[in-house]
Amino acid sequence: MRKKVSKSKLRWLNLCLLGAGIFLGCAVSNLAETNHQAHAQEVHSQESAPSHGGGVANVLLAISLILIVAKLGGHFFEYLHMPAVLGELVGGVLVGNLWLIGFDTFEFVKHIPSIEILAEIGVIFLLFEVGLESKISDLLKVGVSSLLVAFAGIIVPFFLGAFVSHFFMPEAHIMAHMFIGATLCATSVGITARVLKDIKKIDTNEARIILGAAVIDDVLGLIILAIITGAISAIESGAGGGISGLDIMIIMGKAILFFVGAILLGHFFSPKLFKVASRLRGSGLLLTTAVTFCFLLSYLAAVIGLAPIVGAFCAGLILEDVHYKEFRAQGEKTIEVFIQPIAYFLVPVFFVLMGIRVDLSSFANVEILGFSAVLTIAAIIGKQICSLGVIQKGVNRLAIGIGMIPRGEVGLIFAGISSTLVIAGKPVINSSVYAAVVIMVIITTLFTPPLLKWVLLRKETPV
Amino acid sequence: MRKKVSKSKLRWLNLCLLGAGIFLGCAVSNLAETNHQAHAQEVHSQESAPSHGGGVANVLLAISLILIVAKLGGHFFEYLHMPAVLGELVGGVLVGNLWLIGFDTFEFVKHIPSIEILAEIGVIFLLFEVGLESKISDLLKVGVSSLLVAFAGIIVPFFLGAFVSHFFMPEAHIMAHMFIGATLCATSVGITARVLKDIKKIDTNEARIILGAAVIDDVLGLIILAIITGAISAIESGAGGGISGLDIMIIMGKAILFFVGAILLGHFFSPKLFKVASRLRGSGLLLTTAVTFCFLLSYLAAVIGLAPIVGAFCAGLILEDVHYKEFRAQGEKTIEVFIQPIAYFLVPVFFVLMGIRVDLSSFANVEILGFSAVLTIAAIIGKQICSLGVIQKGVNRLAIGIGMIPRGEVGLIFAGISSTLVIAGKPVINSSVYAAVVIMVIITTLFTPPLLKWVLLRKETPV
Repeated sequence: MRKKVSKSKLRWLNLCLLGAGIFLGCAVSNLAETNHQAHAQEVHSQESAPSHGGGVANVLLAISLILIVAKLGGHFFEYLHMPAVLGELVGGVLVGNLWLIGFDTFEFVKHIPSIEILAEIGVIFLLFEVGLESKISDLLKVGVSSLLVAFAGIIVPFFLGAFVSHFFMPEAHIMAHMFIGATLCATSVGITARVLKDIKKIDTNEARIILGAAVIDDVLGLIILAIITGAISAIESGAGGGISGLDIMIIMGKAILFFVGAILLGHFFSPKLFKVASRLRGSGLLLTTAVTFCFLLSYLAAVIGLAPIVGAFCAGLILEDVHYKEFRAQGEKTIEVFIQPIAYFLVPVFFVLMGIRVDLSSFANVEILGFSAVLTIAAIIGKQICSLGVIQKGVNRLAIGIGMIPRGEVGLIFAGISSTLVIAGKPVINSSVYAAVVIMVIITTLFTPPLLKWVLLRKETPV
Repeated sequence: MRKKVSKSKLRWLNLCLLGAGIFLGCAVSNLAETNHQAHAQEVHSQESAPSHGGGVANVLLAISLILIVAKLGGHFFEYLHMPAVLGELVGGVLVGNLWLIGFDTFEFVKHIPSIEILAEIGVIFLLFEVGLESKISDLLKVGVSSLLVAFAGIIVPFFLGAFVSHFFMPEAHIMAHMFIGATLCATSVGITARVLKDIKKIDTNEARIILGAAVIDDVLGLIILAIITGAISAIESGAGGGISGLDIMIIMGKAILFFVGAILLGHFFSPKLFKVASRLRGSGLLLTTAVTFCFLLSYLAAVIGLAPIVGAFCAGLILEDVHYKEFRAQGEKTIEVFIQPIAYFLVPVFFVLMGIRVDLSSFANVEILGFSAVLTIAAIIGKQICSLGVIQKGVNRLAIGIGMIPRGEVGLIFAGISSTLVIAGKPVINSSVYAAVVIMVIITTLFTPPLLKWVLLRKETPV
């Protein structure tokens, strides 16, 4: 598919791209700045009244810049054999902190609320895609090892993270500690799978255990997220600000009930829904039905106090090809094929924005640097306990532990959510802690691929 | 592709759907209302600060409801052999006016600014798609007849519309008259093409002339739109509020320069852009490059004071398959294939929102009813002059005149833009006039398909 290009040519291309990027940045700088001032009022009013041109024009410029940053960042990271998603994130961190060296080209992006909404819709499509990729039957099929690995990989990092958080910020709310613990829980199935595929180890025992555990981790992580967000909204709506053991039980029950209820009811109703939709006239019906199904479940999750992405993931988990066999019989493609272009368009907005939100000036504070470092170490060590969950013999345990390290998307999503949650008027975690968490995610994800390659390719036969 | 279903079964299905729709509406009513109140604050704050759940949850609910309305409306209209887009519009009008009979279920949709932005992004994708479908070479190829038909179909309705507007609203700004004149200009190529295809007359002389003229109409209409929006922003930025002949000339020059410049430069640069992009690593590069290209041109159009859709249309006009032959060689699909799912997702948001914005209570005013009726008549008569532009013999001139009647998408887009433009603190056209224009669009589009079928199928050999 991809043309072979010589290495020197590629290097030249990279230099050209870098130059073009810098040039574009500077060129846009003036344009955006003058425009920014002219439209400043409009951007503000855009949100309170329908307005023409100005409002949407800034959104278009912001999306364009974000997509350029995402694709250039992705390219450089893939060129360095790193995951593209990290390139989008690091690209976002870079352009989001250009103001530190005097360029405020990208500052206007931070002040457009619609970009925020587009990013959140992007992450809903991402989780919907992840859900579509994982099947309930696969979840039930993975062995006892995966289950034990997953549980170990949730419990140890959670308490380790909460402990580190408590050590560095003794004055913070207990929910902040729990959130940071939760950020350390979920393994990024995408990055590990990508590496295993690249080195042709996707059909090994290690791969099956890691991937199975990563998927279970996602689910357990989302349940933990559901519990914590539920607890925070309970605290916020309650008078006192405290939360009892009973409250936690109720929220846990609600979260599990939502998961099980959505999956059971959805499994029963979604074939009927798609059957009715397939009888409608018009175009794009499969896509719109799937999107509506996903959005309504996300909305329901939000209504009962969970994160919307929990609903999106459930929606993806529920939907299987057989549910829309009437559409397939009409010659329609699969939902994945339809969702992919929308995800290509909106998901980078999320990752670049996550990067843009990182305020590098936080790291002028030594304590935050230390927190970031210790958190990263906790994240790495926490997952090494995983390998104890493996019950088979002849499995490379070190590979399992390393394969579980990357936090990737899910960790970022948690960090993003926690930075927007509020208890008693104060954000649950502040921008410095947010920056530390993002750095932890970047480092764990950056170092896993080379480590994993080294461990698995060191000797062909696992210990 | 589509299963044959007996007519009685379909009727039963339709009844069921209607029932389901009403039930859903009522069920959602309570949910949305309580939620609406709970989130009212959040919706408000959503736009000024990043917020979790509440903000995006309402957006998700709004999009879901809009997509359901769009698809049910589209289904009913296609069932009645009417274009689906009208169903989306009428569906929007219905749900947007439910408050008149006491249901305020859908009122919250009107107050979410992000929905507005999503709709505007949707219409940019729509015009990008329209541009992709029409090629510059085709535009240059259509005969003299098409050109004459198109010019006649622009000039006569424009002055007729402006005259009617002046007659009914002598106190309104001259720009309002010009805008209403412009709304009568553009023929909707989509609806006519669809009807001609349905009755297998797409390969006739009449079809070629109509479609050629409709495409030229789109371009001329967008140029007129560019001139008028340019004039309005000139008036707004100028001190006096007046506009001289010289100003108009400058704006006209700017609009034509943008069109010609974008097409010439774009034609030269876009192959290079896609060639560089094709060398990048990562996924979704063709889509993101195309979207960025389209968005940046739309932004440029907005910066020089034109409507963003003008830039989107130009972007589509410029891009041809051969420009991204490197991507095609890598096995990528065409841009159209990638854009379609995004359009399926966002375009209905635009049409339903256009409908929701129509305030039916305006028609309690007899004058507005009269205005609406006369405007519709002007729209129909104005296009009949078109047939005089036909120079070939043996062509059904009546069919040409009728084929040019529907205003469809482009008329709606103009109406939408004009309702958001402001001169001296007052909207260029108020909500009553907006409603009248939308009704004109609905009626011209509703009656063209049956009329066209009747004229073309009456006798097999044209006069």
